[in-house]
Amino acid sequence: MSFTIEFQPLGIRLVCSEPLTLLDATHQAGINLRSDCGGAGICGKCAVQIFPSLKENPLTETEITFLTDNQLAEGQRLACETIVDSNLKVMIPSGSVIKGQVLQVEGSQKLIHPDPLVIQKMVSLKEAALNDLASDFSRLQQAADNKPLSANLEVIRQIPALLRNNSWQLNLLIRENELFNVTDQLLPQLLGLAVDVGSTKLACYLMNLETGEVLATKGAPNPQIAYGEDIMARIAFGIKDIEGAGMLHSLLMQSINQAAAELCAQIGVSPSDIVDACLVGNTAMHHFFLDLPVASLAFSPFVPVVSDSLNPLSSEIGLDSMPGSRVFAPAVIAGFIGSDHIAFLVAEGFGKNDGVRLGIDIGTNTEIAMQKGGRIVSVSTASGPAFEGAHIRFGMRAAPGAIEHVSINTQGNVQIQVVGNQPPVGICGSGILDAVSEMRRLGMLNHRGRLNKSTPGLRLDGQGNSVFILSELEKPVTLSQNDIDQILLAKGAIRAGIDVLMDYLKVKPDEIEEVLIAGAFGSYMRPEHAIRIGMLPEIPLPRIRAVGNAAGAGACMMLASKSNRKKAEELASRVEYLELTVYPEFPLFYAHGIQA
Amino acid sequence: MSFTIEFQPLGIRLVCSEPLTLLDATHQAGINLRSDCGGAGICGKCAVQIFPSLKENPLTETEITFLTDNQLAEGQRLACETIVDSNLKVMIPSGSVIKGQVLQVEGSQKLIHPDPLVIQKMVSLKEAALNDLASDFSRLQQAADNKPLSANLEVIRQIPALLRNNSWQLNLLIRENELFNVTDQLLPQLLGLAVDVGSTKLACYLMNLETGEVLATKGAPNPQIAYGEDIMARIAFGIKDIEGAGMLHSLLMQSINQAAAELCAQIGVSPSDIVDACLVGNTAMHHFFLDLPVASLAFSPFVPVVSDSLNPLSSEIGLDSMPGSRVFAPAVIAGFIGSDHIAFLVAEGFGKNDGVRLGIDIGTNTEIAMQKGGRIVSVSTASGPAFEGAHIRFGMRAAPGAIEHVSINTQGNVQIQVVGNQPPVGICGSGILDAVSEMRRLGMLNHRGRLNKSTPGLRLDGQGNSVFILSELEKPVTLSQNDIDQILLAKGAIRAGIDVLMDYLKVKPDEIEEVLIAGAFGSYMRPEHAIRIGMLPEIPLPRIRAVGNAAGAGACMMLASKSNRKKAEELASRVEYLELTVYPEFPLFYAHGIQA
Repeated sequence: MSFTIEFQPLGIRLVCSEPLTLLDATHQAGINLRSDCGGAGICGKCAVQIFPSLKENPLTETEITFLTDNQLAEGQRLACETIVDSNLKVMIPSGSVIKGQVLQVEGSQKLIHPDPLVIQKMVSLKEAALNDLASDFSRLQQAADNKPLSANLEVIRQIPALLRNNSWQLNLLIRENELFNVTDQLLPQLLGLAVDVGSTKLACYLMNLETGEVLATKGAPNPQIAYGEDIMARIAFGIKDIEGAGMLHSLLMQSINQAAAELCAQIGVSPSDIVDACLVGNTAMHHFFLDLPVASLAFSPFVPVVSDSLNPLSSEIGLDSMPGSRVFAPAVIAGFIGSDHIAFLVAEGFGKNDGVRLGIDIGTNTEIAMQKGGRIVSVSTASGPAFEGAHIRFGMRAAPGAIEHVSINTQGNVQIQVVGNQPPVGICGSGILDAVSEMRRLGMLNHRGRLNKSTPGLRLDGQGNSVFILSELEKPVTLSQNDIDQILLAKGAIRAGIDVLMDYLKVKPDEIEEVLIAGAFGSYMRPEHAIRIGMLPEIPLPRIRAVGNAAGAGACMMLASKSNRKKAEELASRVEYLELTVYPEFPLFYAHGIQA
Repeated sequence: MSFTIEFQPLGIRLVCSEPLTLLDATHQAGINLRSDCGGAGICGKCAVQIFPSLKENPLTETEITFLTDNQLAEGQRLACETIVDSNLKVMIPSGSVIKGQVLQVEGSQKLIHPDPLVIQKMVSLKEAALNDLASDFSRLQQAADNKPLSANLEVIRQIPALLRNNSWQLNLLIRENELFNVTDQLLPQLLGLAVDVGSTKLACYLMNLETGEVLATKGAPNPQIAYGEDIMARIAFGIKDIEGAGMLHSLLMQSINQAAAELCAQIGVSPSDIVDACLVGNTAMHHFFLDLPVASLAFSPFVPVVSDSLNPLSSEIGLDSMPGSRVFAPAVIAGFIGSDHIAFLVAEGFGKNDGVRLGIDIGTNTEIAMQKGGRIVSVSTASGPAFEGAHIRFGMRAAPGAIEHVSINTQGNVQIQVVGNQPPVGICGSGILDAVSEMRRLGMLNHRGRLNKSTPGLRLDGQGNSVFILSELEKPVTLSQNDIDQILLAKGAIRAGIDVLMDYLKVKPDEIEEVLIAGAFGSYMRPEHAIRIGMLPEIPLPRIRAVGNAAGAGACMMLASKSNRKKAEELASRVEYLELTVYPEFPLFYAHGIQA
């Protein structure tokens, strides 16, 4: 007994032989249906419309909780709650599919002094003769300035025929002392791939290692999103069974390989021309791309399997590149401070001078580093995904249709700015920050963040709760007390992290010479609002600087330069990790931080 | 159209679908039919009896040349010359099948001071906690005396679960700074495999690396023999097409793996318990077991693909052992001086003192090393396979039925000693050496090696040539002028090599303090006869010593000891290779050496 599920407007048909949830069906069909909780039934984001409506299956508690009256009227159901066993047509509302998100790949432009680890060297050997009987490989080493080279058998096996068919000439591809491949001709350029593997997006860079030039860049969604927007949901999926972890690894590598192939196609080369790579990411992504077990990241004390930098063969992790080439995976610091943090520190030159500097990379976990004198101390704070739109009724990432900026005048009139200048369908982190900041300025929120019931623009929603109307153009986009609470918890966690660092290193806000904010949210965020709602301490605005995808920039810098890799190693051994949950004053700072 | 070939007395049936030579059919049936030339039609050893006789296929020139009247009368044919396309029964005469050869595995007993490269270390780690957040791998390195360890991802991936299921205990298997595997418990013993890969036999040794004890030994035929007794025939087969080389490699590794499995079974362990290995062999065998291309060994100037020592993963060469373990393949010196020569020098302590010493390993190519003062000079001389019984009408290796010793009294009465005390079916190297020496002593041969026609015991063979009767028990075993010529050419090549070394290093025979003769032939050979026929210079007999399988002993010594590997590296870089064919006096020495 088989049945067909037809997904529209995508026109995808899936033939199934066994009953399954619609969420699983979208996975099988390769559709990136939103599912922030990974199918746990706690986010309500995987709404779909079903024809014929499944009248025989009554609505579940979860569906009643999460679906609005309009959604219910339209026959929408939650894909994770809906089991299908017969022919069906499914309409996926545009808000439920992950697409076209603004993927930031550019960091502040860095001048890279190329000093690549991989070099090529064309050598011309003297032909063997009875009075010159050195072996092919010895002859080759003599020609390579008598450098002692190691090589695996796969490479050595190619040498004799290549030499003799090529007039005793050979191009050597060398990584430190390892001869990892040989070709008959000099490669026109030495290509390297850097990837910042974010939880939601991949930022990929194709570089010319000899010039330090970035030849092409590409952003792509992290396909693991379909298994949970939240890293913890993915880790949970990955430890349920071995296949789950393997699948999350494979999915990730498929997307990286596809992005790399597209970058290569742009400049007319192939992934097998890539001779070196550098992959960075938070510790969970680091473990996923290396295919390391993630179980230890799921439970306290959240220790990584390995924290040292690694140089596996590309083939060990399934990365498409030149046979024999390797991947540099810089060190991670702790369970929630990954190699993307090291990349950030490298990109922004932490440790170069003795000034007091603060670096913040805002995400579900926000990593914060403070430098003072010779010390660099880093913390990770569980700010949650509110700034990325999760756990917010109308929250979304900075995709077209997202309200990115909000101002409210004293009359309570709301002015909005929308990504892509189109009718708003939701609100992203910077918009929420603005809104909360403006509402607090106008007294619509008290210092505990409670909505003042007399605020103009308040309305009761279906459940009888007050919500503040931001827009009613395409559909209503509102902020609820719960949404405001989520934002206050998020910014409170970040502020508490900063306060702990200032306390630990005995730094006062006006001593901070520079605040560097990384990531997409950092680029959209208005610093004055961040200070007004207390996410940042009172620091003169000119000292606050958005640095874009600093982790990606750092990955490029390490890819193209041995000295930058050395800096990364130094930073990794030097950074002091401070565990917030055992810092005695942290609860106090947090309680203060979450006030409006 | 298919037909069946039945091989008797083995009872093997082979179903074929296309015409093929009987030699190819024996290969397909897994029968080790003798074929010294690998099917080139120049050795006449692959005689078989066929029923019904192939009357429709006339005898070929080659068959007429090589088959005796008796053989022809019996309906014998040469398997390499006989193409089969219909049902057939084939009787394989016992003389045509390779079996039960005396396989020497023992060298002089060496006391090995164990100092293994691979060690194991059971560590007990402190469990991770919020105030002790080191990663699993960092924690493990701390426990291993803070030794910086590298590990490939395959090993790292196993660590977290093993640690947590084993009360944070773990047994580390370390090779230099490489953590190559982990187990939950200390291994009862660290096992290593040493193999001397000879052209005709494999000598395999299973060792306890921690005690230096050899636990079990096994000799096995080199299965490549079926593709040519002569190395050059195998190389030719290996360069005909890529599959040929791959098959010769696979055949060899299958036999090594089978021998290793049998050794392991003897002491109740499995090949996956083998943590280290050392393989030595002549340069062709070295290239075959490493699966390196052999084409450069087929043509002048006969240079190896690689001469440095190598440490590939066992998996790179298909050797069954513990995952992650490696194989030590010591350096080779030249196209015809392999790592078995280095093993010989290590076993016999060359380079340890300044005495004048001579080391000889007799085979198709005979490697000779002479030490004087701080110098060690080695040559390889093309002595040919006569001492192994090839190119001799009734020649065979030292297998049961081989005449191993001959004395002749002044009346011309012949006394023989036969391996296995059975009726003789042929004669091996030491027997031929004795016979020629005795015949020369008694004036049956002149100084040019010509048979004196008045010698008692001479008889005319079918072709009208004089042959000397050694035995007529089971069947006639005779020596012809051609057989004598082959032996004189062989011993002449060896003597010329020795003379070149004495000339080059300005050594007189009585200055040589020690002569070490390796290999099976060396153990059977009577030194007085070797001197009498001029194979060795006049050296007092007590200074001449047979050392058995010195290459095998050397492989064991390198397997169990880092310092012996270091000695091997020193020797490899120190040995001066002298190419005989370009030594000006070589032709003179050779012309003198081949006289009787």
